[in-house]
Amino acid sequence: MVTTMAKRTAITPTRAENYPEWYQEVVKAADMAEHSQVRGCMVIKPWGYGIWERIQYELDRKFKETGHQNAYFPIFIPLSFLEKEAEHVEGFAKECAVVTHHRLEKGKDGKLVPGGKLEEPLVVRPTSEMIIGDTFSRWVSSYRDLPLLINQWANVVRWEMRTRLFLRTTEFLWQEGHTVHATSEEAMEEAKKMLGVYVAFCEDYLAMPVIPGRKTKDERFPGAVETFTFEAMMQDKKALQAGTSHFLGQNFSKSCDIKFQTKEGSLEYGWTTSWGATTRLIGGMIMAHSDDDGLVLPPRIAHKHIVIIPIIHDESLRCDVLAFAEKLKADLQKELFHEMPIQVVLDDRDMRAGEKSWSWVKKGMPIRIEIGAREMNEGKVTMMRRDKGPKEKEFFVAEDFVQKASEILQNIQDKIYKKAKNFLKENTHELNDEKEFYDFFSKKDGESGFASVFYNEEAGVHEKIQKELGVTARCIPNDGKESEGKCIFSGKPSKKRVIFAKAY
Amino acid sequence: MVTTMAKRTAITPTRAENYPEWYQEVVKAADMAEHSQVRGCMVIKPWGYGIWERIQYELDRKFKETGHQNAYFPIFIPLSFLEKEAEHVEGFAKECAVVTHHRLEKGKDGKLVPGGKLEEPLVVRPTSEMIIGDTFSRWVSSYRDLPLLINQWANVVRWEMRTRLFLRTTEFLWQEGHTVHATSEEAMEEAKKMLGVYVAFCEDYLAMPVIPGRKTKDERFPGAVETFTFEAMMQDKKALQAGTSHFLGQNFSKSCDIKFQTKEGSLEYGWTTSWGATTRLIGGMIMAHSDDDGLVLPPRIAHKHIVIIPIIHDESLRCDVLAFAEKLKADLQKELFHEMPIQVVLDDRDMRAGEKSWSWVKKGMPIRIEIGAREMNEGKVTMMRRDKGPKEKEFFVAEDFVQKASEILQNIQDKIYKKAKNFLKENTHELNDEKEFYDFFSKKDGESGFASVFYNEEAGVHEKIQKELGVTARCIPNDGKESEGKCIFSGKPSKKRVIFAKAY
Repeated sequence: MVTTMAKRTAITPTRAENYPEWYQEVVKAADMAEHSQVRGCMVIKPWGYGIWERIQYELDRKFKETGHQNAYFPIFIPLSFLEKEAEHVEGFAKECAVVTHHRLEKGKDGKLVPGGKLEEPLVVRPTSEMIIGDTFSRWVSSYRDLPLLINQWANVVRWEMRTRLFLRTTEFLWQEGHTVHATSEEAMEEAKKMLGVYVAFCEDYLAMPVIPGRKTKDERFPGAVETFTFEAMMQDKKALQAGTSHFLGQNFSKSCDIKFQTKEGSLEYGWTTSWGATTRLIGGMIMAHSDDDGLVLPPRIAHKHIVIIPIIHDESLRCDVLAFAEKLKADLQKELFHEMPIQVVLDDRDMRAGEKSWSWVKKGMPIRIEIGAREMNEGKVTMMRRDKGPKEKEFFVAEDFVQKASEILQNIQDKIYKKAKNFLKENTHELNDEKEFYDFFSKKDGESGFASVFYNEEAGVHEKIQKELGVTARCIPNDGKESEGKCIFSGKPSKKRVIFAKAY
Repeated sequence: MVTTMAKRTAITPTRAENYPEWYQEVVKAADMAEHSQVRGCMVIKPWGYGIWERIQYELDRKFKETGHQNAYFPIFIPLSFLEKEAEHVEGFAKECAVVTHHRLEKGKDGKLVPGGKLEEPLVVRPTSEMIIGDTFSRWVSSYRDLPLLINQWANVVRWEMRTRLFLRTTEFLWQEGHTVHATSEEAMEEAKKMLGVYVAFCEDYLAMPVIPGRKTKDERFPGAVETFTFEAMMQDKKALQAGTSHFLGQNFSKSCDIKFQTKEGSLEYGWTTSWGATTRLIGGMIMAHSDDDGLVLPPRIAHKHIVIIPIIHDESLRCDVLAFAEKLKADLQKELFHEMPIQVVLDDRDMRAGEKSWSWVKKGMPIRIEIGAREMNEGKVTMMRRDKGPKEKEFFVAEDFVQKASEILQNIQDKIYKKAKNFLKENTHELNDEKEFYDFFSKKDGESGFASVFYNEEAGVHEKIQKELGVTARCIPNDGKESEGKCIFSGKPSKKRVIFAKAY
């Protein structure tokens, strides 16, 4: 007799059953974040915040290596500042948190109400071009002050109606770079350079392959001349814009009056850029790699690499097993993974070993080590890797494992990346006419992917596609081979293929 | 003939001439921060923000070593949450920025006005007890969840009418620790432990001696059972509260409903603490150490330790001198100061050497090195220390200087600390009656200091002193010898001496 049993998974529903709900459950099971009682705002819990700290550390290092300095600017932007750049304010007006009062006072019924009305409302920054631009107008006066290369780590607020942990929240954390240059070429080079920094970070640390490119004009940042983007593919084959870098031309320097005296003595407007990446990167990483047992954490972005789980059946051996585990932990922590000490957790909670092990599977811990009396006596360890089946075990002499730990972590990293890379490749298709395009995107959720098509940005086309299919132009890839074709929508000549997809 | 010349200083006015204005000028000359166009909010410039990054790095490390984890909570607090704790809301109501709308829309005259009125106003966090408490009420259910040890790095907003860079601004940066414990004793121990962390940090890194103790009841944090504080003395002999740690008893766990099941099965309210330190620390450090030539930066908190200034009189030697300077920089950066690489700037700006040197004096750079053709030929360096006169030079064989750099930096650190320590000691006086107290605090600004007096917190006394002298009870020192005395105001028996002072 044969019984077919559904494989039990730690996360319900599975990706195949309900992808959006699976995502929420992964975040919850890994204890990364939760919705707060404040509409649209999340609480980032320690396991999630630790990943943000890793992202901050690595990006910050790269920003400093490329000559940028950190600074901090006010969270509030006077309404009149926002209005200086018409497209910009238009882009953000619908999602601004507005401060109108500066105290609380007793109302008629004795309850507290807003008091002390401000002469001018203040907007909680949705992005800081206008307040930083105003400041830069005083910092820049000569070509000697350029380039001005500044970055800020901050919280921003964009009032969102439908929110999703990490991916879209009213308040989120980010960094925003803001730079001023003496020439258009230099500013363009900066915007591209920072795109490169982001792309390398995504691929090397988050193990998330991306397609770098630029946005079509409908999808540019409000006020930008050119927006560079890098798009990742989630496991439901939708796109996720992981960050952007903008060449702002002289638009913002004109609205903010950022002028400098050239070497030759003339007065010119500066050329500016801005670029940002947010806590959304965490959401993208979760959706790109995790499986039906929970989070899969690429070792290079993990804040903890290895958990040691002592298995104690015989209480009289507790002290010895724990001592063996402690020594292993100490030895491992002396080893380096990419020049940083390997981070080890010894989990001696009072809990069943199976339950304990599953809790770390769900948290995405790259390596689990089990140590019982037998391992101790034989000087061995039992190892499980998060990129393999949850019950697939490997055995090592303890000293050997310590020696190999860093290599194994890198191997996990490589495998996670390769898997995502293949997935992106397999699900990106060159399509050649409008019907094929419509058929492609009329498939069920999770069955389409990225479509690469000739497109010449004819007016009205993008709006129509977006309305009818829920699909948007994601980017004009940097590596797009320049070839002659015809726009699949207008039939007119087009020189570029553009990636379209449903997106987060 | 003798001409008396006033010694020229880099900062005008001097401390003696006008202390508050001197402070503003030091901040400006060091390029640390400036007022923004947003009322009460400052811009922290790279030289100032670098110090905040050092503070963050060192405190964060200490918090993690003591078992705390970082997390992030919403910036907005619903009005109804604040109201749950009567004393707390009373304490902050007058200085709250209130968000009342969630978009901008066109008004009658076509201008943008706040739109989308919120059902419930949101307060921009002045501190996060209520929003974190609400979250903790869901995180804590059993004694197994305790202690819960969380820290947050964030911006907060307290609407201030009179602001001063770093010392008092509407928006400031800080960290706030929030913990829950199973017993009163444990929570009290935590509050004291974190006071200890702050005190050690202030003394060891900021070179700022402080008097740790607890606040009298009039000066406690709104809602706290006990507030621990550490008070530093500025060069005008006024006090600066550098940070606080609060034992909150069960006040906040009751308002926020943080309950847990004990080992024995009963349901109890948790015992909570909170503790915070802010960008104000930077203001305190500036006022404690700087002189009439500008900022004096203790090396352990400096983000740059040494500047190398090449002096080039003969253009044909430029390349050789710069190569010598580059090599020195590389050698120095291989050396460690407190386990971290020494940070070196090579200043090759096109500027007169004298002007260049003064710019670093004003920025507080601990060590300046000058290298000219002679130094290069002899393999030597000319060194100036920021804790000595600006023209006091010392000469070293280059290799010797590299070897000794770390030791010299520590020596500068020690001297700055010792000077401040003596100043605090010399200006703290035990006074024994009310008249002496009034005479002491009726002196001109900058001539009084700290007064240590017997005081029994009789109702009305503190208010009277504050009104008549502008003096407040700063703290009941931890090391106060328990002795019998009489309150100098009420004449009634008192067991404790209390420090009074004018304060920032």
